[in-house]
Amino acid sequence: MKLSFQKSNLLNGINIVSKAVPSKTTMPILECILIDATEEEIKLTANDMELAIETKVEGSILEKGKICIDAKLFSEIIRKLPDSEVIIEEKDEKIAILCEKANFSISGRRGDDFAYMPSVETDQYICLSQFTLKETIRQTIFSIAVNENNKLMTGELFEIEGNQLKVVSLDGHRISIRNVELKDSYEKKKVVVPGKTLIEISRILPGDADKDVYIFFSKNHILFEFDQTMVLSRLIEGEYFKIDQMISSDFETKITVNKKDILDSIERSVLLIRESDKKPIIMDIKEESMELSLNSVIGSMKEDILIHKKGKDILIGFNPRFLIDALRVIDDEEITIYMVNSKAPCFIRDEENQYIYLILPVNFNVSR
Amino acid sequence: MKLSFQKSNLLNGINIVSKAVPSKTTMPILECILIDATEEEIKLTANDMELAIETKVEGSILEKGKICIDAKLFSEIIRKLPDSEVIIEEKDEKIAILCEKANFSISGRRGDDFAYMPSVETDQYICLSQFTLKETIRQTIFSIAVNENNKLMTGELFEIEGNQLKVVSLDGHRISIRNVELKDSYEKKKVVVPGKTLIEISRILPGDADKDVYIFFSKNHILFEFDQTMVLSRLIEGEYFKIDQMISSDFETKITVNKKDILDSIERSVLLIRESDKKPIIMDIKEESMELSLNSVIGSMKEDILIHKKGKDILIGFNPRFLIDALRVIDDEEITIYMVNSKAPCFIRDEENQYIYLILPVNFNVSR
Repeated sequence: MKLSFQKSNLLNGINIVSKAVPSKTTMPILECILIDATEEEIKLTANDMELAIETKVEGSILEKGKICIDAKLFSEIIRKLPDSEVIIEEKDEKIAILCEKANFSISGRRGDDFAYMPSVETDQYICLSQFTLKETIRQTIFSIAVNENNKLMTGELFEIEGNQLKVVSLDGHRISIRNVELKDSYEKKKVVVPGKTLIEISRILPGDADKDVYIFFSKNHILFEFDQTMVLSRLIEGEYFKIDQMISSDFETKITVNKKDILDSIERSVLLIRESDKKPIIMDIKEESMELSLNSVIGSMKEDILIHKKGKDILIGFNPRFLIDALRVIDDEEITIYMVNSKAPCFIRDEENQYIYLILPVNFNVSR
Repeated sequence: MKLSFQKSNLLNGINIVSKAVPSKTTMPILECILIDATEEEIKLTANDMELAIETKVEGSILEKGKICIDAKLFSEIIRKLPDSEVIIEEKDEKIAILCEKANFSISGRRGDDFAYMPSVETDQYICLSQFTLKETIRQTIFSIAVNENNKLMTGELFEIEGNQLKVVSLDGHRISIRNVELKDSYEKKKVVVPGKTLIEISRILPGDADKDVYIFFSKNHILFEFDQTMVLSRLIEGEYFKIDQMISSDFETKITVNKKDILDSIERSVLLIRESDKKPIIMDIKEESMELSLNSVIGSMKEDILIHKKGKDILIGFNPRFLIDALRVIDDEEITIYMVNSKAPCFIRDEENQYIYLILPVNFNVSR
């Protein structure tokens, strides 16, 4: 095998597929990137058996072949080369990397030993902009569950109906929902995508508003295709939680507040909380103003914030970090929070239901 | 006590003194910053008993007093406040921090419990620009010894004679020397300054070329004074190594080479070395060109670099990281390396002896 690349093209390809290289594994072949130039194109692939990424790299095939190279070493060497033409030559699993006067020689592994990506039928799919997918992941990914006790909670629901895509994540204390309008209508579909896959996708998606991502579904897999790249992931099996039963539009109290004011204030309050601590932030909502307060072993804080209120006064406590997570991903200048009573979840949502963030309140000692 | 500040002034002061707050200590008072407004100025001080930093902060004293506040919490709270006026009020060791609508209450500690900085007589001193001091530290600090087996090696020699300041560090494998010309002449002086002190100084020194640092010496202490800040440190006791005996100007081979070319090449070579490994980079110096090569379990590399040579051909090996450390802090486009034989140290130095970097070679198996 003998290939020629511009350094920047090759490095870009390596950076993309490296996202699927596991940081720890007992199978050394998984730590490799496969360079496949057996056909007319040069493809790089990495595969950790849950997630596989393949990308095409521009370059010249001087002699066909394929080989596996340790991903970390390959990436480090290419990064340090001058910005020039890079030649990669392989013979008997010995790889030479040449660039200007630099001349590296390292060992590779047989390309045939590499685990290929399973193929996915491409009859069921949806299409949306890179920007929308990247944003939607960012706006929901924080409320997947971290521990694996309930596998379904570590993923996100992708539900398609007509021209609507609904993306949902939940962890038992809160639910994040984003509704996205698609350009076309599609068949009904409901899958649960691993959170890890979505995190890696959003890292490698350039996020252009005028470029598209195609998402293909098969029984056990989901395939994301964009630019020169394909990301394939297993789906999480099982029936996702029935969200609609948890969402209500009844309320006793409705407040509208400047997002930056309330977010800044809550971000300050968490300075008084050490990790192990679980102190709530308490909202004392009255006519036209809300007092936020927090007491911990470290100290106390309180702040008054102007609001517009409809309905009853209410005293309610929340985990401040859950509020912060939701508020940070809402782009609106003003937000509206709906509440029923101090034991029922609050809803932060816009009028069009493009986003709904449900957060359970926490009990607190009123006397403090 | 009641004080008023602009947030940015207060935060700047906290950032400066925080460099002397130890990350781990069994004495909680050392984790504090002392706010002292008992006189006409507001001073912040931190002191880990080896190193103390004091800085004056612009602000109004509405009521005199002093108090100690946990440095980390204080810094986090002030950073998160709006860019506005901050009021700090203390009564019975309870501290209120007020800024716009934010209202924090935290506990402090008695100011009297704080360990004050010892005073230093100010009759012996030197003066140099902030830029020069910061640069000189950067250009020498990497070759102090990391482990404490020989305390003197963990510091840097500051030697003053006439209008010359010589700064030296060494770790048993290499020596770094910078000679700085001062504007004035001073009395002879020779002290060893702890490396940690110099690292913290170079972090807080703004580094302006047209602002000065005054350095005062007493028997056991060194005091750096610049802008509104004073940094006091213990000196390391003992007689420093006799450097002059180790420096020779004899050579058998002298090469001149483009600094970027040789540095880039050596930086690439270390990609083939894992941490525990100790493979040398081998220089095969011939007429007009030098071959750099490195072999390790991971792979091998070689590169040819153009040089100008005077004297004998030579084959010599070095720890590549020692070469990298020295080359990175030399600003010259071309550098000159002097060598005697493959067992004797090489010298990288300029004609004026503004810098001298001595590096011991390492043995290697010629057959490879």
